[in-house]
Amino acid sequence: MTTAISDNALADAFRQISADVDACFDALLTVPDDPRAVLFQAMRHAAIGGGKRVRPLLLTSTAGMFNVDRGLAVRVACAVEAIHVYSLIHDDMPCMDNDDMRRGKPTVHKAFNDAVAVLAGDSLHALAFEILAGSQSHPDPFIRSELIYTLAEASGPNGMAGGQMMDLEAEKAKFDLPTVTKLQRLKTGALIAASVEMGAILGNVPAEGRGQLRAYARDIGLAFQIADDIMDETGDEAKAGKALHKDAAAGKETFLSLLGLERAREQAFFLVDQAVGHLASYGREADTLRALARYIVERDN
Amino acid sequence: MTTAISDNALADAFRQISADVDACFDALLTVPDDPRAVLFQAMRHAAIGGGKRVRPLLLTSTAGMFNVDRGLAVRVACAVEAIHVYSLIHDDMPCMDNDDMRRGKPTVHKAFNDAVAVLAGDSLHALAFEILAGSQSHPDPFIRSELIYTLAEASGPNGMAGGQMMDLEAEKAKFDLPTVTKLQRLKTGALIAASVEMGAILGNVPAEGRGQLRAYARDIGLAFQIADDIMDETGDEAKAGKALHKDAAAGKETFLSLLGLERAREQAFFLVDQAVGHLASYGREADTLRALARYIVERDN
Repeated sequence: MTTAISDNALADAFRQISADVDACFDALLTVPDDPRAVLFQAMRHAAIGGGKRVRPLLLTSTAGMFNVDRGLAVRVACAVEAIHVYSLIHDDMPCMDNDDMRRGKPTVHKAFNDAVAVLAGDSLHALAFEILAGSQSHPDPFIRSELIYTLAEASGPNGMAGGQMMDLEAEKAKFDLPTVTKLQRLKTGALIAASVEMGAILGNVPAEGRGQLRAYARDIGLAFQIADDIMDETGDEAKAGKALHKDAAAGKETFLSLLGLERAREQAFFLVDQAVGHLASYGREADTLRALARYIVERDN
Repeated sequence: MTTAISDNALADAFRQISADVDACFDALLTVPDDPRAVLFQAMRHAAIGGGKRVRPLLLTSTAGMFNVDRGLAVRVACAVEAIHVYSLIHDDMPCMDNDDMRRGKPTVHKAFNDAVAVLAGDSLHALAFEILAGSQSHPDPFIRSELIYTLAEASGPNGMAGGQMMDLEAEKAKFDLPTVTKLQRLKTGALIAASVEMGAILGNVPAEGRGQLRAYARDIGLAFQIADDIMDETGDEAKAGKALHKDAAAGKETFLSLLGLERAREQAFFLVDQAVGHLASYGREADTLRALARYIVERDN
């Protein structure tokens, strides 16, 4: 597998999208001078200055293949990231995964409290759709509507939230490989797929022309989760910025527990090669997506 | 104040919208045969078979003034109700208001658990936007996008969620009347206003022609909350279907604590008269909205 952009160029792309997403959230989340101040501070705590920004980079890189205005792509990417961040805030709560650290900082319910965590998550959730439907979104209302539908479907009960529900049930039942695969396709895969899809929507690629990009997204989504499972087992908590070794402690079946470390790693690399294969009809404009696929299984956080 | 539709006719309208909203949620929330079943059961528990459906009736009654197809208006009304229901699920959680009963049934976190309550709320939140952006929504994408923006803004940190945050802070600080008014305009008023606004959007009423309807909605939103405060103090828990007397126990300032019972009641009736006054340029097509305004301060649940 070869990619034409170097590790340094990918690192630059990550730095750039992180700065752009932070600036976008900073502008959207001005703290008001009234009793809602703490709500906005909590949203800023979670949304600004942390995270890999994999979904925003996937979205802007896909949009970039079709010469979409970068400012617009960044704004739409912030909507996807707002959904991701809200899901982390809620997922970290004591009644869910009960995590104290996230992205190297205290989680929202630790830095504030549980009630603020509920409302900060709900507020970022609403903000995502406000961004997509607002006056600074894509000027074509048909495209706005398609972006919104894609994100709502990917994050609801037939997407991310449904996957989180399966994840809760995984502690009680011993899931088999097809069930773990479905769980992960929903829990992480759906929003990763939506990031690529929304980049293509912005690029005016018709639904029937998105097959290869969808296949790419599907494969890297699963590879991403296998890599997460491996990191949960073998990773470094300081680098990850959160608690690890949680799956085994909770008695959940994962790709790792079902396949073993060696086969899980092989499967992740196989999926990445397959994902890159789906981009064969694209030229150098897809190089960032190719590099991202490789990064997804080689990252250490 | 006179209204041309009788109490019986209004009761019929409530029965009809309740049946329609239940049928809509029933169709949207088919329980899947996989580990997400409990999530859909929780969503159904909260969304079907309960609640006054004031917001859906406001929306469909406004849309009806402009001869909007009823099936379409009901679907859009279900999006608004999905937002309302999600907010109740989250608001009832132990870390928020800690309520055991809602609409005469156990709250979602009591009937299921806290984690399911978080995810059922999040899922209904996403469902609302999926309904509005989906293929069975309004055929004009510009109208779809306007509906979505209105609902997202009304439910986010500058609307409902922001009002809930102020409500949490109200336990710590002694708010004055302007601050309580702002709190309630956000917490309940924003979604009530959005219901009327979205009916007008469906009716192709341009933004500059919605002034009277907005003024109506603003007044009934505040009247609704004053009536709620009065009910919290003087109401019957069996009829209300939820715990009462909570504001005083929490030491929160309300319209009632600030104005006293007599002046609060007067203010509610004044607001209703004023709301009906804003409808003077409309004929009999606004009679349901007029009756709804009166109902809002006379209801006992």
